[in-house]
Amino acid sequence: MSVLMEFSMFPTDQGESVSAQVSEVVRMVRESGLDYRLTPMGTVVETDNIAEAMALVERAAAVLDDLGCRRIYSAIKLDIRHGRGGRMTGKIESVEGRIGEVER
Amino acid sequence: MSVLMEFSMFPTDQGESVSAQVSEVVRMVRESGLDYRLTPMGTVVETDNIAEAMALVERAAAVLDDLGCRRIYSAIKLDIRHGRGGRMTGKIESVEGRIGEVER
Amino acid sequence: MSVLMEFSMFPTDQGESVSAQVSEVVRMVRESGLDYRLTPMGTVVETDNIAEAMALVERAAAVLDDLGCRRIYSAIKLDIRHGRGGRMTGKIESVEGRIGEVER
Amino acid sequence: MSVLMEFSMFPTDQGESVSAQVSEVVRMVRESGLDYRLTPMGTVVETDNIAEAMALVERAAAVLDDLGCRRIYSAIKLDIRHGRGGRMTGKIESVEGRIGEVER
Repeated sequence: MSVLMEFSMFPTDQGESVSAQVSEVVRMVRESGLDYRLTPMGTVVETDNIAEAMALVERAAAVLDDLGCRRIYSAIKLDIRHGRGGRMTGKIESVEGRIGEVER
Repeated sequence: MSVLMEFSMFPTDQGESVSAQVSEVVRMVRESGLDYRLTPMGTVVETDNIAEAMALVERAAAVLDDLGCRRIYSAIKLDIRHGRGGRMTGKIESVEGRIGEVER
Repeated sequence: MSVLMEFSMFPTDQGESVSAQVSEVVRMVRESGLDYRLTPMGTVVETDNIAEAMALVERAAAVLDDLGCRRIYSAIKLDIRHGRGGRMTGKIESVEGRIGEVER
Repeated sequence: MSVLMEFSMFPTDQGESVSAQVSEVVRMVRESGLDYRLTPMGTVVETDNIAEAMALVERAAAVLDDLGCRRIYSAIKLDIRHGRGGRMTGKIESVEGRIGEVER
């Protein structure tokens, strides 16, 4: 099983700039040991089970809660597929195999 | 703590109509005992902790897996806020208090 | 063609409560003449073409901009399907036809 | 004004693998001339106005429609902010300025 999850999570009560808070969430993801990529609009992780992905979302909310955030918003997408992993790079390579090089 | 979660989850390998599979996910949510509402684009639930919300997403994926779905997509939104619950109806009532009656 | 769109849009620079700003977006949707439903986590609209749905998102951003919001976040889902409309109620009725009455 | 949009769009009536269809959407984005990045879970673009972003979503749906897809799903996120652009790289650099190098 391969679980790709893209998620954004941020406080909405901390003013226009939230990079301080978001950075602490990213630090937690980096320290989790999961395969991840930071994008301009969220973080993508790959795991082989959904429980691990859900636990990461929970920990992200705990990070923001610990920073004193009182309202938190999150948008999450999951792409769950039977079979082997390696889709963090595999999906983009599959597109490039069809149409040539893309920005990534 | 009040956790409002809206989520959609469906197979993408089962053809154009997926109401049979989605119905089984909704049945699971209904039997969970959580406060929920079905909308045309997803299911909204309210809990007082994020772990319970994440566990529901996990069980939804298990329902579809048990039905033989090999690829599953999900889009999830969370609105987490300190303070008391009752936001399943409270947020809409707050809008109506400002602009009058709306369709719901 | 039936286009179902669920969208949430809110400022992130206006503090913890944003019901004043969100209410003005909902007012605009109500006055648009489109078939819509307000849910605790967003607004669902049905149109017969995607251009109309995208124009609504644009107008929603303009409403918040006019209110002085300097940072706006939005999460949008589209379910586009060939064939006739009526899916605002049709999708829920299809679920109820399979598993019996649900909360809505 | 800087509009960052992350979007995924894919058919749900074309079976488990949809890379052929998704590749044509990515090709259209690449040819649009907009600044974009492909991620494992979607495409991020930056524009200076929301109309251009919405037009891209419309064209993406047209690409899939032309390929004969009869049901299309899309999940879109917008981060709209007053001020100058350059956020495609700027947001990640801001995180790295706080916590050091990250995977991207």
